[in-house]
Amino acid sequence: MYRTHTCGELRIENAGQTVTLSGWVDASRDFGGMTFMDLRDRYGITQIVFNMDSDAALCEEARKLGREYVIRVTGEVRERSAKNLKRLTGEIEILAKNLEVLNAAKVPPFTITEDTDGGDDLRMKYRYLDIRRHSVQSKIIFRSVLGLETRKYLSGHGFIEIETPFLIKSTPEGARDFVVPSRLNPGQFYALPQSPQTFKQILMVAGMDKYFQIVKCFRDEDLRADRQPEFTQIDCEMSFVHREDILQTFEGLIHHLFLSMLEVDLGAFPRMSYDEAMQRYGVDKPDLRFGMPIHELNEKAKGKGFSIFDQAAYIGALVLSGEADHYSNKEIKELTEWVQRPQIGAKGLIYVKCLEDGSFKSSVDKFYGAEDLRAWADFTGAKPGDILFILSGEQDKTPKQLGELRLELGRKHFLIQAGDFKPLWVLDFPLLEWDEEAGRFFAMHHPFTSPKTGDIEKMASDDRAVLAGIRADAYDLVINGTEIGGGSIRIHDRGLQSKNFSLLGFTPEQAQDQFGFLLNAFEFGAPPHGGIAFGFDRLCAVMQGQTSIRDYIAFPKNNMGRDMMIDAPSAIDDKQLKELGVNVVKSE
Amino acid sequence: MYRTHTCGELRIENAGQTVTLSGWVDASRDFGGMTFMDLRDRYGITQIVFNMDSDAALCEEARKLGREYVIRVTGEVRERSAKNLKRLTGEIEILAKNLEVLNAAKVPPFTITEDTDGGDDLRMKYRYLDIRRHSVQSKIIFRSVLGLETRKYLSGHGFIEIETPFLIKSTPEGARDFVVPSRLNPGQFYALPQSPQTFKQILMVAGMDKYFQIVKCFRDEDLRADRQPEFTQIDCEMSFVHREDILQTFEGLIHHLFLSMLEVDLGAFPRMSYDEAMQRYGVDKPDLRFGMPIHELNEKAKGKGFSIFDQAAYIGALVLSGEADHYSNKEIKELTEWVQRPQIGAKGLIYVKCLEDGSFKSSVDKFYGAEDLRAWADFTGAKPGDILFILSGEQDKTPKQLGELRLELGRKHFLIQAGDFKPLWVLDFPLLEWDEEAGRFFAMHHPFTSPKTGDIEKMASDDRAVLAGIRADAYDLVINGTEIGGGSIRIHDRGLQSKNFSLLGFTPEQAQDQFGFLLNAFEFGAPPHGGIAFGFDRLCAVMQGQTSIRDYIAFPKNNMGRDMMIDAPSAIDDKQLKELGVNVVKSE
Repeated sequence: MYRTHTCGELRIENAGQTVTLSGWVDASRDFGGMTFMDLRDRYGITQIVFNMDSDAALCEEARKLGREYVIRVTGEVRERSAKNLKRLTGEIEILAKNLEVLNAAKVPPFTITEDTDGGDDLRMKYRYLDIRRHSVQSKIIFRSVLGLETRKYLSGHGFIEIETPFLIKSTPEGARDFVVPSRLNPGQFYALPQSPQTFKQILMVAGMDKYFQIVKCFRDEDLRADRQPEFTQIDCEMSFVHREDILQTFEGLIHHLFLSMLEVDLGAFPRMSYDEAMQRYGVDKPDLRFGMPIHELNEKAKGKGFSIFDQAAYIGALVLSGEADHYSNKEIKELTEWVQRPQIGAKGLIYVKCLEDGSFKSSVDKFYGAEDLRAWADFTGAKPGDILFILSGEQDKTPKQLGELRLELGRKHFLIQAGDFKPLWVLDFPLLEWDEEAGRFFAMHHPFTSPKTGDIEKMASDDRAVLAGIRADAYDLVINGTEIGGGSIRIHDRGLQSKNFSLLGFTPEQAQDQFGFLLNAFEFGAPPHGGIAFGFDRLCAVMQGQTSIRDYIAFPKNNMGRDMMIDAPSAIDDKQLKELGVNVVKSE
Repeated sequence: MYRTHTCGELRIENAGQTVTLSGWVDASRDFGGMTFMDLRDRYGITQIVFNMDSDAALCEEARKLGREYVIRVTGEVRERSAKNLKRLTGEIEILAKNLEVLNAAKVPPFTITEDTDGGDDLRMKYRYLDIRRHSVQSKIIFRSVLGLETRKYLSGHGFIEIETPFLIKSTPEGARDFVVPSRLNPGQFYALPQSPQTFKQILMVAGMDKYFQIVKCFRDEDLRADRQPEFTQIDCEMSFVHREDILQTFEGLIHHLFLSMLEVDLGAFPRMSYDEAMQRYGVDKPDLRFGMPIHELNEKAKGKGFSIFDQAAYIGALVLSGEADHYSNKEIKELTEWVQRPQIGAKGLIYVKCLEDGSFKSSVDKFYGAEDLRAWADFTGAKPGDILFILSGEQDKTPKQLGELRLELGRKHFLIQAGDFKPLWVLDFPLLEWDEEAGRFFAMHHPFTSPKTGDIEKMASDDRAVLAGIRADAYDLVINGTEIGGGSIRIHDRGLQSKNFSLLGFTPEQAQDQFGFLLNAFEFGAPPHGGIAFGFDRLCAVMQGQTSIRDYIAFPKNNMGRDMMIDAPSAIDDKQLKELGVNVVKSE
């Protein structure tokens, strides 16, 4: 037997017992007559004592062991004289009587402690050592518990977990499909799913009523920071529902997960339209952990001879509270440079300090008198001591820049309280998004999203502005400025689905070729249905206040899509390629 | 609101309430003044009544609806005069006041009833109609509940569910890998995992201690009946364990699943060595729902001048109880032809009838007298009234043929009781299996399986017979003659793993290239570990007494690996191929 107990289990009540523990040598301290060793496993750390007086040979043996050796120790539990009350096993130690090395260890390339991780490349190459660190291990365990809690909740609410296939059909709409050559069907390919979207809709047509799945999805994108080619979704679909049913059901799920995992009561989730989110926060996923909405200043600021504002299609302001009197020119210069970075792209930054004494100081004093500035302050609700930051420019870009500036000010001035969670439903997204380069509409959500009932007739229009104004019955769940879920009521009518495909530039033949099975299914009694999918990796990270999803994934890939530990992808045998009927094109 | 209740929910207590139901028109019966309609959803069927007297227009409308129309009905619950007590909703009906068609339906290509399924091709093409059948739906729901129960049990026993990657590295050992070209790494490929084997071992090295995952695996095999290119495993691994720990833990899981899902108490699982299983049942997965072991007759039957037996390396017998006196020549002829089929491959079948009157009648009466035959009967335990069936031939083939004959006799003579479950652990498999054609050993389980401790020294031998005699610390769980799980204690020592790779024909360079990450991991403190994987699809089928896994998979592929509903795999764009850096080789 390798162990009678784990390294996290023994307490003062066990004193006097003979026990066997197995684990990793975490640390070791030699004194003249004694060696104290910390033995570690997933469950905790237990102190082992080797005594030179009582067993010199055993103590010598123990002193030869390096960090991360795997050993088995048998001995007697006894009360410690110097207790470590920060550790659950800290009242006891094991007086070793027997020691066996189960596996030796070379010196690890980095020390396995919380604050030493050896950098990203080493961590990923030696992921098996990295995961031994408590901070990484605890994230992987959190994910496991969250998954089980999700399954228990949804199953308890009548949802059936159904596995959908991974080897599916490639569609041009999904230009970012990973594909898999079929050996049995030479020249043909499967695709890995970007989501089980069409299958979950088919399951509704099949009468399964409530479906969910925690499922891997795949997207072959140029990887940005914190994107992974394979990621996990909590994927859900329900029949005979309106939007309200979906919002209630999944608000319930998220509410439950925060309560059961974190003991956080999120309360009722506020709701906001896409238009309002864009106008007030310059983004479709506002972080509501602090205020500072955007105020449009067009009417107040134009026509006073300041040509930059007069020529701008849009002028907007943010109010930063209580910083006016001590904000330095240097700070303003830094902020100005920040908004001028290409990632943000603003031309410049105007400020108006509303000083405590009731006067104003601004970078546009030449054009605007105290009356004008007071009017701005009144309009935006700025009080003495506040600063206004103003950006101007194009109608579609400037609110987004203000949104970015708002987040930067929130970070810079610590407006976000640690441990705070602010959920938000964002509703009524546009159905279609015009792509100037492609010269056609794309689906903002996906091609199966239903327009809002009142907007269906607009789909008959050939006026681009009318089409762009169609609202979708789509919704996102945002927490702390991160989109953690999104979904929609789906089209369940063949005619409407065909119309939507045609607006998206599909010929009837293309639509039939790629999605014929779904269009056909809609002819055999399709129930009204809708659903949502949550980013599981992202949900884990947001719940634990982390910005990166990386450590919630046991074996993540780097941003060239490479697994540094196993060194994949890699070349494969010519024989295997031949069997698959494909050739590698040699690049010159 | 689409519904206030489901179609399986209303009872006599609801009489008098006004309710709204949505669902599919299952059947409809018109009488002079009334139309009775069965409305169906996942939860049940409720009878709706339309009354010509009270609302002729509504009743006329209802009469226009075809099968599988999706409708919403509002009406009043009332007690039925003619109750259907076989149906949970059978005491009530809804008197319709309002009817709305939510989606029309064409006439389905097959009727959606239990006994009409339209044949396999139609079923798979119209899987969304097939799944509407209760028998299919209930299997998919069973699978979902079984998955949740598995997760709850394993989590409750300290296992962490950890997702391992799907885009991994191809290895020549896995010649049946599906591969995925990498766009970001041209000329390189990922492989889809045949199992998460190396990752779960890495997780043990990482100190996760107890891992599980219900996970899709992929194998690009020429598909036999009831094999799928993608299938699901309950994959498990534990650290600091001997075989006994694993057997206890997972016997506990399976015991729990049968008890909680089926109210069946499996009792303690018997155990049998691989050698004994092969000798007594001619197969490594004996069906113990009936007896009839194989008796080797070499000593008793040779040397009496019957040249077929004298020249055979092996002679073995089965005893069929109580059939001797009425077994016809025709039946024996049929059995003889059955064992001579190429799938079985026996040369002929010898029988000995032990008649009720104590005499014998056999097909070898010319060579063996009553004394000889009585000796066979005594040796095999055959009583008056029993028949012996005897096969002879090669040492390695004949017991397998007897094993097949045993199963055939079990089926033919109804020796298997419906609803009976007989689990069995099969232990001590050979480590290595000689492949005559390849001229080398293959791993019987996989290359990471540990030999039994006592057999490790045999690995140094270069005698093929000694190597073939090495026993692995491997085990299979068999239920009712079906292998539902298998696993082993793993090698956790770099040296032993390297030795095993070399016995399997890997050069050190090949081993390092393909499994270097694992060999390296073993140098940084690898704990002793072992695990098991269960075929989840198969477990579902065995638990419900089904022989096919097909209906436990929502969207199975046919035996050309094709999804008939979505028509995958399929050709993909040249543009996409170009981006991936691969070419399709045109076949001439």
